[in-house]
Amino acid sequence: MGANGIADRVLAGDVRSAARLMRDLDDRLPEAETALRALFPRTGRAYVIGLTGAPGAGKSSLTDRLIGHYRRAGKTVGVVAVDPTSPFTGGAILGDRIRMQDHALDEGVFIRSLGTRGHLGGLSRSTSDLVQVMDAMGKDVVIVETVGVGQDEIEVASLAHTVVVVAVPGLGDDVQAIKAGVLEIADVFAVNKADREGADRTVRDLQGMLELRRTVLGRPLDHDAVHRFHGAPIAAPVPSGEWEPPIVKTVAVKDEGVDELVRAIEGHRAHLESSGERRTREVARARAGFVTVLRERLLAGALARLEAEMGRLDAVAARIAAREADPYQLAEELAARLAAPGEAR
Amino acid sequence: MGANGIADRVLAGDVRSAARLMRDLDDRLPEAETALRALFPRTGRAYVIGLTGAPGAGKSSLTDRLIGHYRRAGKTVGVVAVDPTSPFTGGAILGDRIRMQDHALDEGVFIRSLGTRGHLGGLSRSTSDLVQVMDAMGKDVVIVETVGVGQDEIEVASLAHTVVVVAVPGLGDDVQAIKAGVLEIADVFAVNKADREGADRTVRDLQGMLELRRTVLGRPLDHDAVHRFHGAPIAAPVPSGEWEPPIVKTVAVKDEGVDELVRAIEGHRAHLESSGERRTREVARARAGFVTVLRERLLAGALARLEAEMGRLDAVAARIAAREADPYQLAEELAARLAAPGEAR
Repeated sequence: MGANGIADRVLAGDVRSAARLMRDLDDRLPEAETALRALFPRTGRAYVIGLTGAPGAGKSSLTDRLIGHYRRAGKTVGVVAVDPTSPFTGGAILGDRIRMQDHALDEGVFIRSLGTRGHLGGLSRSTSDLVQVMDAMGKDVVIVETVGVGQDEIEVASLAHTVVVVAVPGLGDDVQAIKAGVLEIADVFAVNKADREGADRTVRDLQGMLELRRTVLGRPLDHDAVHRFHGAPIAAPVPSGEWEPPIVKTVAVKDEGVDELVRAIEGHRAHLESSGERRTREVARARAGFVTVLRERLLAGALARLEAEMGRLDAVAARIAAREADPYQLAEELAARLAAPGEAR
Repeated sequence: MGANGIADRVLAGDVRSAARLMRDLDDRLPEAETALRALFPRTGRAYVIGLTGAPGAGKSSLTDRLIGHYRRAGKTVGVVAVDPTSPFTGGAILGDRIRMQDHALDEGVFIRSLGTRGHLGGLSRSTSDLVQVMDAMGKDVVIVETVGVGQDEIEVASLAHTVVVVAVPGLGDDVQAIKAGVLEIADVFAVNKADREGADRTVRDLQGMLELRRTVLGRPLDHDAVHRFHGAPIAAPVPSGEWEPPIVKTVAVKDEGVDELVRAIEGHRAHLESSGERRTREVARARAGFVTVLRERLLAGALARLEAEMGRLDAVAARIAAREADPYQLAEELAARLAAPGEAR
């Protein structure tokens, strides 16, 4: 079956073909990329919700509830779960994942996990690929669930239309501090496990931080920095909007507050549509995706040229390690001499 | 003062010049890169220790103790503290940082934090730059302290000569599970806060995992994946060694177990030297650094060409978002047409 065959079957919503394509993308098979290209014109319809927060915040349970809600509303749902646990252990988290597979019997739900195969560095690209495939399959809503502690994970979440940051009472000061980095990308806050002691304090803390941001700073801190990536912006600066992130208390395991959370998400979605910000975010996503693809292709070409001219990367690295070669000069020369990959100039 | 002037002063160990260079590198000033290039031949002497673990594991206190130890042994120490907290809050962690600045009065210690300015995506490059400068300053030991939960942070830690993974009793199952991802890069384990209940269980858990890895798998799980980065390996596969990561109990705040920890680190260092693995790790670091520099330079050139030919990236991204342009085809064309940046072919 050729790339177009697979693409056609994915567009028809075929689960097996989609799963196979995702596996092949994971293995970076060239046919898979061809199929992804064929799908591209048919993407851009899904609404992408990012769900991020510290480990133990109950993100999986909340995702589970959101799936149920959207399914009851007649919508199809895709989930990309990104977590840096290895299959080596990961008891609690794997358990959650398995529990979420209750929905595996439901044809309107498609769940895939990332991060169990150790994709260091390629998180953003891999997540984006999976979201594209789910989008092409016709999923109405795609939820991207990440652990909001690493830079990569925050970057991934920030490419969603609506970013839900999940806080939780009593996780300890250090863990709460870690969450600060994700404050700046939050469109909606969920204070989950809100039946625990300290929930109101967590809500007040969040309110205080939002207030501080509004009055003292006038705009989210580090906004430019978040959207800057080595001189190549990864996302357009969102117009300093009138949107005030609502704070919703939830108890996912008891299905409490989930309707309110959905209302907050849908409220933000309406805001994006009416303010024109949805388009801004789409452009930001397109830009980030394009830059990633471009970067990969350039590097592949340069490394092919390097091998042809100077020997294997390993050998070159050994010369650099011995300080016999200058990596900066080498990079400059390669960039200057790079015409078509593998073709002499 | 020119780039060579700064480089010379950094090589002479001048703290002000080093601090200024680091700031300029942070701002991506071209002169700063020139200075870094000038320093490069004089780097590669420092021993780099990665210290990683979940939030709240007490990494800063442990770093503090390690600094003290190496200083008493007459060695100079650099510290790069990478944490994803924003300056927005971050109470506990900022407090630790400030406490560590006790050593600021000691000329043999140089401490810099990363991650407070929202360096999404550039963590690996920025950390590597700071390590290079400290290395060039003549620091004998450079400690890179990261929160071991994100992919980026794990990648950063994995470029050290010796990686110390800091575990802690009773942080909760979810947080412990998160740590699983860093198991695979550990050369030494420190079970910190070992005066807490459950310390022995944590030690047994780690022993069990190491045992499992050894007997069932024969080698660290996901080893290849950890060292793979979009087809371009970021680090050489370390020969499946005889090294068995020791597990050391510490109570950093009481300075207990720190001598044992240092012995474990130095034991690993001796192993690296005698087995030839130190060279392997140096080559891996050189390769990762070179690929990063190359990737940046290529992208900068391609984006300049893109702007010259097709208009600003924003406009191109808008066409991609509207599905009027195909990012894969665009990337291919750009890569094919890219001669020298800005120069017509």
